[in-house]
Amino acid sequence: VRVIGLISGTSSDGVDAALVDIQKRAGRCRIELISFDVYPYPGSVRKKLIDLASGLPQPVAHLCHLNFYIGELFAEAARRIARKARIPLDEIALIGSHGQTVQHLPMPKWEGKRPVRSTLQIGEPSVIAERTGITTVADFRPRDMAAGGEGAPLTPYLHYLLFSHPKRSRAIVNIGGISNVTYLKAGASLEETVAFDMGPGNMLIDGLVLAVTGGRKEIDTGGKMARRGKVDAALLSELMRHPFIHRKPPKSTGREVFGLPMVTSILQSSQARRLPPEDLIATATVFTAFAISENIRRFIVKKGALQEVIVGGGGVKNPVLMASLAERLAPIPVQPFESVGHESRAIEAMTFALLGYQTFHLQPTNIPTVTGARRPVLLGKIIPGNFPQSK
Amino acid sequence: VRVIGLISGTSSDGVDAALVDIQKRAGRCRIELISFDVYPYPGSVRKKLIDLASGLPQPVAHLCHLNFYIGELFAEAARRIARKARIPLDEIALIGSHGQTVQHLPMPKWEGKRPVRSTLQIGEPSVIAERTGITTVADFRPRDMAAGGEGAPLTPYLHYLLFSHPKRSRAIVNIGGISNVTYLKAGASLEETVAFDMGPGNMLIDGLVLAVTGGRKEIDTGGKMARRGKVDAALLSELMRHPFIHRKPPKSTGREVFGLPMVTSILQSSQARRLPPEDLIATATVFTAFAISENIRRFIVKKGALQEVIVGGGGVKNPVLMASLAERLAPIPVQPFESVGHESRAIEAMTFALLGYQTFHLQPTNIPTVTGARRPVLLGKIIPGNFPQSK
Repeated sequence: VRVIGLISGTSSDGVDAALVDIQKRAGRCRIELISFDVYPYPGSVRKKLIDLASGLPQPVAHLCHLNFYIGELFAEAARRIARKARIPLDEIALIGSHGQTVQHLPMPKWEGKRPVRSTLQIGEPSVIAERTGITTVADFRPRDMAAGGEGAPLTPYLHYLLFSHPKRSRAIVNIGGISNVTYLKAGASLEETVAFDMGPGNMLIDGLVLAVTGGRKEIDTGGKMARRGKVDAALLSELMRHPFIHRKPPKSTGREVFGLPMVTSILQSSQARRLPPEDLIATATVFTAFAISENIRRFIVKKGALQEVIVGGGGVKNPVLMASLAERLAPIPVQPFESVGHESRAIEAMTFALLGYQTFHLQPTNIPTVTGARRPVLLGKIIPGNFPQSK
Repeated sequence: VRVIGLISGTSSDGVDAALVDIQKRAGRCRIELISFDVYPYPGSVRKKLIDLASGLPQPVAHLCHLNFYIGELFAEAARRIARKARIPLDEIALIGSHGQTVQHLPMPKWEGKRPVRSTLQIGEPSVIAERTGITTVADFRPRDMAAGGEGAPLTPYLHYLLFSHPKRSRAIVNIGGISNVTYLKAGASLEETVAFDMGPGNMLIDGLVLAVTGGRKEIDTGGKMARRGKVDAALLSELMRHPFIHRKPPKSTGREVFGLPMVTSILQSSQARRLPPEDLIATATVFTAFAISENIRRFIVKKGALQEVIVGGGGVKNPVLMASLAERLAPIPVQPFESVGHESRAIEAMTFALLGYQTFHLQPTNIPTVTGARRPVLLGKIIPGNFPQSK
């Protein structure tokens, strides 16, 4: 069957849409990408999203409105990816929509004796179901958190399906806004999968680029700024001490840690020492590579074999970041998803197509060893599409 | 089958829980109340909810956390009503949860050429499904709004089932935080039902009581303060001009109109004239009765027969309000729900039990003539309970 997966990542730049074909044989799914695209948000939306995640107080009415407006943009992305693939909407069985994360609070806050973890993804799925007529499964993280998990990461379920190998132990790294890793030991079962967030992906670099260029640039295209800069040893060693990097998995994080708060703190501490902007970007780039390599060394290599590291996400396009990562992980080879036949940009959207499909068929998709949940649960909420007109 | 309905109304005082029995015969539902109770929120929660609805900026993290914490309180209410009725959770087929409204913005805000209406109910249903193991249908308003409706009112669907009569034309009034009415013309079909919000219910009176007593009292118990006060003609005629009262249905409103903003404006305009607190309460009470009677006169009586007005909701317990209403509507008799055999406090919670049941069975429950939606749609999101453990 054909399923559409939708997500906007922590970098809040637009809607990733993947149209996939899913087939089930002998209880095992096969998933194949038919079409993928990214539909950028209007600039005003991106700014509002960054404001929402900033921690500064916001009128609740803004959030309420944005939830529905982003639902419209998600619905439009679904219609556009179907049109691109020339597949009519009524031949699409399901949509799986992750939505847009605006908060993720996996550390419990106590209410009396009750630990409360929480997360908030917006992009109203009722709007998606209404505009497309397609049954939509959405909002995958809350149920895992209700079951005591961190609600993340969820991509390992797809990583296992695509990359697990009887003879090769692999680490699958995704460098999105945040970077995360899935460790697939050779021949291991789904339940033995290990996965966790490692720290910043592109978020910290992007945040600093935006700040030092006064908003003129949003990313360090091709790693050009980092290449011109010099790594500042004092700042780097300060960053390297960040407790999240050294915390044992399972763990997950987001923009509230490695977004504006960290950008602001780096700018403040560097101002006194008059570090050139390029040096800040160079240092943040090496720190990002460190966050990834250090987590792999301490929490994966120490525990088992590792034949290769396969990297996906926007970070793959930053050659300075990739070179620093390869150097730090040598002699373990580091290669992009494309080298094993998959489009790395599409992985997250494909994940939510698969998770939507599985929930609709009453199959749990959280991996308790990965999220820390007490048990496997059905993720997401089901919003029926067009109903058969009643009499 | 047994179904639990949960809601916390705009007065944000606690969770209403109704356990009902629903039977379907020849396509028509019968619903019977087994047990009902209200489980008050902790005081800290009520304060946070009023802050959220106040319009003042709030950290998004507070909302994110509160959504999950209120989900816990809703789950607890479900467990408690089942225990009260001595029915084990695994004999309960479904939960229908409305959640707690924090914003309702039915007037479209334009994004380019796109009108965006929005609403926000919290009380994470994934938590309810996880804690109870019962499949939960929740968040009923967004789909109707996605279909161009106001997302409210939704109780008319149950009103029709319980109160429609072949020979008598009835107006069903609910005085909750907001007051609304359902007009059931004798012998009319569901599609001919007319219903809309009329203005403040208890919200304005409660808000003023809280303010003038410095927080010592939350409601005017038994209408005692109103009875001691004198209606101020100048203030009353100013209030009577409120445009919402005179707007043609369909229409819906909430705390953002008749909550803190109106309380603040009344206090400011009365301060200069040194009106005694009791006079403010007396005036607000008569204004509330006016909002109801004026809407019934202009938008119901002018259009059709009306044999009786049946009133439910917390407002029934305020004899000053009820007397003012009866006087304004005479000679049409005004009587409480109880006089026709139904517990008025339970109506809203029963509504969401019924709506959850119908959505689960793929029956639309919005009434387009009531909400203004373009078509009947399936309301809500389905969150599966315990899944049959996979192999």
